[in-house]
Amino acid sequence: MSDFVAPLDDIRFALNHVADLEAISKLNGYQHADPATAATVIEEAARFFSEVIAPLNRVGDQQGSVLGTDGRVRTPDGFKDAYEKFVEAGWASCHMPSEWGGGGLPYTVGVVIAEMFKSANLAFSLCPMLTQGAAEAVRAHGSEELKQKYLGKLVSGEWSGTMNLTEPGAGSDLGGVRTKAVPHEDGTYRLFGTKIFITWGDHDLTENTVHMVLARTPDAPAGTKGISMFLVPKFVLDESGDPGERNDYRIVSLEHKLGIHASPTCVVSFGDDGQGAIGYLVGAEMAGMPNMFTMMNAARIGVGMEGLAISERAYQRALAFARQRIQGRPVGASGSGPVAIIEHPDVRRMLLTMKANTETMRALVYYTAQQADLAAHAETGEQRQKSSDRLALLTPIVKGWCTDLGVEMASIGIQVHGGMGYVEETGAAQYLRDVRIAPIYEGTNGIQAMDLVMRKLPIAGGGAVTDLIEEMTATVGEMGDHHDLAAFREELAIAIQGLADTSAWLGQRLASGDIDAALAGATPYLRQFGTVIGGWLMAVSALAAVEGPADFEPGFLADKVNTARFYGEHLLPQANGLIPTIEGGADLLADARF
Amino acid sequence: MSDFVAPLDDIRFALNHVADLEAISKLNGYQHADPATAATVIEEAARFFSEVIAPLNRVGDQQGSVLGTDGRVRTPDGFKDAYEKFVEAGWASCHMPSEWGGGGLPYTVGVVIAEMFKSANLAFSLCPMLTQGAAEAVRAHGSEELKQKYLGKLVSGEWSGTMNLTEPGAGSDLGGVRTKAVPHEDGTYRLFGTKIFITWGDHDLTENTVHMVLARTPDAPAGTKGISMFLVPKFVLDESGDPGERNDYRIVSLEHKLGIHASPTCVVSFGDDGQGAIGYLVGAEMAGMPNMFTMMNAARIGVGMEGLAISERAYQRALAFARQRIQGRPVGASGSGPVAIIEHPDVRRMLLTMKANTETMRALVYYTAQQADLAAHAETGEQRQKSSDRLALLTPIVKGWCTDLGVEMASIGIQVHGGMGYVEETGAAQYLRDVRIAPIYEGTNGIQAMDLVMRKLPIAGGGAVTDLIEEMTATVGEMGDHHDLAAFREELAIAIQGLADTSAWLGQRLASGDIDAALAGATPYLRQFGTVIGGWLMAVSALAAVEGPADFEPGFLADKVNTARFYGEHLLPQANGLIPTIEGGADLLADARF
Repeated sequence: MSDFVAPLDDIRFALNHVADLEAISKLNGYQHADPATAATVIEEAARFFSEVIAPLNRVGDQQGSVLGTDGRVRTPDGFKDAYEKFVEAGWASCHMPSEWGGGGLPYTVGVVIAEMFKSANLAFSLCPMLTQGAAEAVRAHGSEELKQKYLGKLVSGEWSGTMNLTEPGAGSDLGGVRTKAVPHEDGTYRLFGTKIFITWGDHDLTENTVHMVLARTPDAPAGTKGISMFLVPKFVLDESGDPGERNDYRIVSLEHKLGIHASPTCVVSFGDDGQGAIGYLVGAEMAGMPNMFTMMNAARIGVGMEGLAISERAYQRALAFARQRIQGRPVGASGSGPVAIIEHPDVRRMLLTMKANTETMRALVYYTAQQADLAAHAETGEQRQKSSDRLALLTPIVKGWCTDLGVEMASIGIQVHGGMGYVEETGAAQYLRDVRIAPIYEGTNGIQAMDLVMRKLPIAGGGAVTDLIEEMTATVGEMGDHHDLAAFREELAIAIQGLADTSAWLGQRLASGDIDAALAGATPYLRQFGTVIGGWLMAVSALAAVEGPADFEPGFLADKVNTARFYGEHLLPQANGLIPTIEGGADLLADARF
Repeated sequence: MSDFVAPLDDIRFALNHVADLEAISKLNGYQHADPATAATVIEEAARFFSEVIAPLNRVGDQQGSVLGTDGRVRTPDGFKDAYEKFVEAGWASCHMPSEWGGGGLPYTVGVVIAEMFKSANLAFSLCPMLTQGAAEAVRAHGSEELKQKYLGKLVSGEWSGTMNLTEPGAGSDLGGVRTKAVPHEDGTYRLFGTKIFITWGDHDLTENTVHMVLARTPDAPAGTKGISMFLVPKFVLDESGDPGERNDYRIVSLEHKLGIHASPTCVVSFGDDGQGAIGYLVGAEMAGMPNMFTMMNAARIGVGMEGLAISERAYQRALAFARQRIQGRPVGASGSGPVAIIEHPDVRRMLLTMKANTETMRALVYYTAQQADLAAHAETGEQRQKSSDRLALLTPIVKGWCTDLGVEMASIGIQVHGGMGYVEETGAAQYLRDVRIAPIYEGTNGIQAMDLVMRKLPIAGGGAVTDLIEEMTATVGEMGDHHDLAAFREELAIAIQGLADTSAWLGQRLASGDIDAALAGATPYLRQFGTVIGGWLMAVSALAAVEGPADFEPGFLADKVNTARFYGEHLLPQANGLIPTIEGGADLLADARF
C-alpha cells in the first residue's frame, strides 16, 4: 500500500483556475493538451508514482546508493525495475517536444508530473530531472551529430544525463572551474580534472550516462568567460551509435549526506588513465556559461518545486497521524475521554499552515510554468516578451521561497507527530532531511536573492515588478464584491503596498550604486516577494472558488476559500514585518565583529 | 583539537550585565558565588567541556548507543571515561545544594555549566540533566530513607537517573498512563507495564540507574489524578546500600532517531519476570502529577537552553567555515580575485542573525535563571513571589521560543556552508538533527503555548504580564538618551505595544470563555512574546554596553551594541506581523476540511 496519494483535485483546481490550462491548450502546438486530456494523463501518472515510485522512498533512504569496490554505483532495491517502467510508460518525456520523441505536453503539465514524482520519491526524481537538463543542453546547443546520437536516448530516459559544474574550489562561483579540456586532432577534446557534488553521477539504471561538463580549454581566459561545455559519455559510442568503450573517468567516492540517500552524489575524476576523458564540445568554445544559463529557469523551477512536493507529502503524513492519534481533550470540549489530536486547535493550526502553504506554492509553481509556456508559445511577440520577463522575475522566487518553505513545512510535519516524529521509522524525519538540500543546490537561496535584486528587479527598468504589482492590485479590486474576502482583501492591499515600497527602495539603492545595501536586504526581500505573490494567487484562487465552477463540488470550493483566507488573513500579514530588515541597509552587517 | 570554544566573554557579559550575578551572589546562601569566583569556575568548566566532552560529539553521532544481545546498552567510545572525569571534577553537582553534597552555586551559574555541556555534546548532556531531575524529585518528595540512600549518589552523578513518563497511549496527556504499581506487604510496590521514550534508560556509565516512574495504584481513579511516582532502581540496594540484585525490568529496544544518537532512548518493560519491578513510593499516593510539576520549570528551562546551546555551536562552525571558504567577490568590491564568503553581505546577514539570536536566547535563559534564584532566595516574600510569577511566566517561553529558534539557527548554519553543509562529515547537519528533538520533548511547544495562555497569562489576574510590560516600557524610556539606539527604541516601543494588545485580547477571550480562539493563537503568541522579551533584554544589554563598563574592552562593547541593534532593528519588527494570526480566532481552523 502506498502512503502517498497525489492530490488530484487540488492539482486540477490550480491548473484550471490559477494557471489557466485551457488557455495554454489553445497555444500553437499544444492543442492536444486540453484540460480533459491533461487530467487523464495526470491521473495515470498519479497512479504510477503512488504505486510504483512512492513505496521505494523509505528503502531508498535506508539502503542509499552505494559505490562498490568495482567502482560502480548500485542503487537501492527496486529502483532499476521501477526506472524501466518509468521509461516504458513514457513519463520521462511526456512534456518534451514531440519532434525529439517526447509527448509534446505543455510545461504546465510537465511540472505536475514532476511534482508528483518528487512527492513520491525526491531522491529518485533527481535522475530524470538531471537527464532532462542534459537533453535541453544538447537540444539547445549541441551539433546536429550530437543531437542525432544522444537526444533521443536522453529524452526517452533510456540514457541518463548529469550536470558536472562544481569543483572543490568552484561552487557558487563557477569562475574558479579548473577542469581542463585539451583539443584532440580528431576534433574531440580530452578532459582532465575533478568534479564534486555530481548528482546521479553513476548508477545501474541505464546502459549509458551522459555528462555535461564545464571545463576550460588551454588558452581560455580566467573566470567564467573561459568556460566551455562538453558532452562526456560514460561509454563512448561505437560506429553504430551503441555504447562502446568505457571513457576515462572514475567515480572516486559518494558523499554521506543528510538526506536524499538514494541519489548518488559523486566525486568524479576525469582523465586518471592519462589519455583524458573523451568529450565533445556543446555550443561554441567559451560559451559554456551563457549556454548553462539558458537551462537555468527550468532547473531552478524544478528545484523550487521540491519545496512544494515535500510539503505535500509531509502534510499527508502529518494529517494521517493527526487523525489516528488519540491524545488529550481540548479545553472546554464536550464529551468525555480523549480525542484524535486533529481536534486540538494548535494541531489544526499546524495542519492548516502546511495545507495553505502547500496550496500557495502549487499555485505559484503552476502559474510560473504557465508563464514559461506563454513565453515560448504565445501568439504575439509582445505577449511572449511579457511572459518571458515575468518568468525571469518569478524563477528565483520559486526556487528560494518554495524551498525555504519546504524545509519549514517538513519541520512542522515532524512536530505534528510529537515524539514519533523524531523516530526515523515514522518517515516524517526523512522529509526534513531530504528537502534540506533544496535551498542549497541549483544556486543557493542567497544566490537566488541576489539574482532577484540585481538581475530581475531591473528588468525593463523595473517594469517587470511594477507590471506585476499593477496586476495584483487589480485583483484586490475584484475582491471588493465579496464580503467573505473583506479581511483578506485588506491584508492583501497592505502587503502589496509593502512590496511596492521595498521594491522602490531597492531600486533606488541600485540606481545610486549602494549595492551593499541592496544585497543586504535581498534575502528577506525574496521572502516578502514570495509571500505577497502567494497572497495574490490565493486571492485568485478564492475568487475562482466563490464563482462556484461546476467542475468542483461545493464543499471543496468552500474549503478552497477557507484555506485561501487562512493564508491571506494569518500568514500573509507577516510579509510587512520584513520591511525594516529589507530597508535596514548594510551598516550593521558591515560593522559586525565576528 | 576541539572545535567548540565556550564564548566566555559573552557569557560573562550576560551574567554580569543582564542577569546581575552580583546581586544574586549577595543572596542568603550564595555569598561565595561572587562574579569573580563564578568566572573561575566557569572557565574551568569551559576547558573541560571543550577538551573532554566536545570531541566526543561526532563519534557519539556516528556510533550511537547500542543495545547488545545481553540486554545492556553500550555507549559510544570514550563516553565512559569522559563521564568519570565529569563526576570526579564535580561538574554534575556544582549548583546542587551543599547540604546534599553539591557545590552550592546559584542556578544562574548552573545554567551556564549546562549550556556549555549542551553546546559541547547535546546527547551526552541529557544523562546528567535527567539525573538532576531525579535528584530533585527525591529531594523534594522522597522519604528520609530514600534521600539517605539515593540522593548523594544522584547529586554527585555516581548513579544516573531517568524520568519514566510516556507510554504508547500516554504522551502529551499523561492521564492515559496504565503502568500498574501493586502494593507489597513490605511497604514497597511492584510495577508492571511498558514505558517508551526513556532517555538514557540504560547505559554503561554508572553502576546504578534510578528510574522515577509514573504509575497507577490498583484503586486509583482514572486520569492524571490517579498517578503516583515511584523510584525503581536498576539494581536493588543491599543492606549496606550498595547495588545488589537486578530489578525486574528489561530494556526492550532503542529508538532509531533523527539525532542525539548517543542518547539511548529506551523502551522499558517492567515486571516481565512476573514478580514485578520493586519500586518505592516518592511523595504521597496520587500526588505523582503535582510532584512532577514542581520539577517542571527546571526541566523546561533545561530543554529551552538546548536551543541556545546548539545555536552557539552551529554559529561557531558556520563562522569558521565562512572565514576560510574562498568563493566569489561581492558586487562592487575593490580588488580582484575571490574573497572569503564572510565578505558577502548575505553571508554576513546569516551569521549576524545567528549571533544576535544566540545572544538574545542567552540573555533570556540567564535572566530566567536569575528569577529562579530570586524566587528561592530573595529577602522578602514579596520579592520571592514576584520572581516566582515571572519565572512561571517565562518558563514556557524559554522552552518554546528558544527551541524553535534553535532549529532555525541550526538550519541557517547548514545554509552558510552551501553544499558542504549537507555532507554529514562537515558536522553542521548533526546540529539540526540533534536540536530537532528540543521542540518536542519535555512538553511539545504546542503544550508550552497552551501553558502560556491558559496558566501563565492569568497569573495574578494578568498582573505577571502587565508587570513585565511595565518594566519593559521603562527600559524604552532609558533608551531615550542614546542617539544610536533611537531606531531600536522606536521598534521596541511598537513591539511592546503589540504584545500588550495581544495579551489583552487573549485575556478577554479567556474571560469570555472563548477558549478555542485563545488556544488557536497560542503558538504565534508565544513566538511574539519571546521575540519581544528578547528585544527588551537586548535593549538592557545595549544600555549596559554603552555605559562602557571597565570589565570589557571597548571593541567588544561596541559590538554588543551593534548586535543588539541588529536584533532590535531587523528581527524584532517581525513580532507585530504575528498579531493578525494571534487575534485571528479559531473559525478558519474549525472550518478547515482536512
